[in-house]
Amino acid sequence: MKIGEKDYRSIWHDERDPGSIHVIDQRKLPFSFEVMTLRSCDEVCDAISTMAVRGAPLIGAVAAWGVVLSFLERSGESDVHASVMNDAFKIKSTRPTAVNLAWAVDFMTEVLKNYPDADIMRRAAEGLCDDEAERSRRIGVNGLPLIEEISRKKEGGVVNILTHCNAGWLACVDYGTALAPVYMAHDRGINVHVWVDETRPRNQGSRLTAWELSNHGVPCTLITDNAGGHLMQNGMVDIVIVGCDRATASGDVANKTGTYLKALAARDNGIPFYSAFPVSTFDMAIDRPDQIIIEERDGDEVRKIDGINIAPDNIPVSNYGFDVTPARLITAIITDRGICRADKESILTLLS
Amino acid sequence: MKIGEKDYRSIWHDERDPGSIHVIDQRKLPFSFEVMTLRSCDEVCDAISTMAVRGAPLIGAVAAWGVVLSFLERSGESDVHASVMNDAFKIKSTRPTAVNLAWAVDFMTEVLKNYPDADIMRRAAEGLCDDEAERSRRIGVNGLPLIEEISRKKEGGVVNILTHCNAGWLACVDYGTALAPVYMAHDRGINVHVWVDETRPRNQGSRLTAWELSNHGVPCTLITDNAGGHLMQNGMVDIVIVGCDRATASGDVANKTGTYLKALAARDNGIPFYSAFPVSTFDMAIDRPDQIIIEERDGDEVRKIDGINIAPDNIPVSNYGFDVTPARLITAIITDRGICRADKESILTLLS
Repeated sequence: MKIGEKDYRSIWHDERDPGSIHVIDQRKLPFSFEVMTLRSCDEVCDAISTMAVRGAPLIGAVAAWGVVLSFLERSGESDVHASVMNDAFKIKSTRPTAVNLAWAVDFMTEVLKNYPDADIMRRAAEGLCDDEAERSRRIGVNGLPLIEEISRKKEGGVVNILTHCNAGWLACVDYGTALAPVYMAHDRGINVHVWVDETRPRNQGSRLTAWELSNHGVPCTLITDNAGGHLMQNGMVDIVIVGCDRATASGDVANKTGTYLKALAARDNGIPFYSAFPVSTFDMAIDRPDQIIIEERDGDEVRKIDGINIAPDNIPVSNYGFDVTPARLITAIITDRGICRADKESILTLLS
Repeated sequence: MKIGEKDYRSIWHDERDPGSIHVIDQRKLPFSFEVMTLRSCDEVCDAISTMAVRGAPLIGAVAAWGVVLSFLERSGESDVHASVMNDAFKIKSTRPTAVNLAWAVDFMTEVLKNYPDADIMRRAAEGLCDDEAERSRRIGVNGLPLIEEISRKKEGGVVNILTHCNAGWLACVDYGTALAPVYMAHDRGINVHVWVDETRPRNQGSRLTAWELSNHGVPCTLITDNAGGHLMQNGMVDIVIVGCDRATASGDVANKTGTYLKALAARDNGIPFYSAFPVSTFDMAIDRPDQIIIEERDGDEVRKIDGINIAPDNIPVSNYGFDVTPARLITAIITDRGICRADKESILTLLS
């Protein structure tokens, strides 16, 4: 998508520097646009665990490249395969909630097993990134009619969309998940406006979502995470679309902490609530919310902003990174393969 | 309540300096404890509108003293009464949502009308502060059995209370509203633990509630506003108690933005949700949520923390300060006169 006049992806490989990949350091946004060059598996692990890159699809893409970089690093060793498998395990351990991460790493170790060749592995990782972008594009295509329908009902009036966290192109390789239909609607001239939850504690909404929407020219307004309920009560939200980090086979959606509260408010006010993600985000091995492991993150994420204390150091903090929105609160799931209801039968039909 | 070993109120008058009142500058907490001396009606208006003092009951108490200070300032003027009435109008305009403010100012102008005398007016304002403290104490007495009952059911195990914003002694003259039963339970040896919502955008939770609970020795844990839903889904919250800035005759409760989302989560998880406030907070002239005017505050409250940008200056922001929790989501209302259901009949019975 666009930054000013230029088109970007959130991860790219430059053939003139084949032992590296480039990503945007998302910790520096929105105040500074800095490109990071990652040259080793350790740098990839760091970039993921420190959240220089984040968002389930992008994490998967970066992790896939991590396996390639590990293979390049290990090429002189006696048991390359064992060493890379060890690195692959390390990559998988960086973020426990994102299912795409494990999926992408497993895909790449499968390639490694069958074609232990640098060029083939590079092409596999590039293909994985292209596929990810294409999946996002299809989520956009599949979600677009939902926005078009509201626009028609409002006779071309502004369609107000609320989103939580960042499920835009910065979280993916391109387009986004939750935001893909929004970009597509905007690019087709539909009047859209996005309420952007700031998304404490890491403020991905104010730092990333507002930044990427503005840079692409989509009207948006920043709000606190507390505000969405009031807006919904007062007819100021037409549709809620969020992303997903892991979904159960029953359609329960783990997403950034606070998503569940917005789903409750949407239900209470008769507003449709959608989660948008590629089908790779389904973890078909589980079908209950309590089977999703919710990672606890450092309390300093809450106590500090940019290293500055906003609460005293000695205050105990609890900081679960995600919550689970139960399927019963979800109007439908928007995927790269189409839209389905949030129940096992519909999901299985979609996947078959 | 206690700061270290010393007992404090949030507003006090020193007879040796009769033309002033003292308050804690709550904008400086928790990092610095500074006492402000207010010597004029303008200083009172500033303290209220800049939120050096905040919380419906404390605003009322400070506003009452504002009328006294105005009277002292105007004493040489030809039409003292008209000038003070003009100042009273200015005080009332500082914060539109808090009903206590108007109530306290009207009470003091009534005193002025009947007894235009500095000593009598000072005593009236002091009495109003003492009454406010006593009302809070009674809220504590009336809410205590709710916590005791949970403690009994859990056989003395920790009672986990979630609260939003600051409805503690800093918001009142003493004890608090939502926190009054918590302090009382703690002082009687009941194991209580408070989940403190940080309460964006002004972070009254992390700045004030966590500070006052910790200073009094009550165990508490700071969480983001997004986290409460997850905690409730996982059995980690036994009871929610919040304050109130204005309540309708039907039991709808306007409180800090985000309260409604917590009420929805409590309902969804079968957790009792209480609002605690003195009966003066009822605005019996209205009985529908949409009759409560919700003030919109400066967008910079969201964009900046302590003057430092956390979002770019050019990002549009919407910043409603409050939301309304409809009566149907409220288990009961805890007041200085007792507990009542959140419906017109119960409220009228309580008030009669």
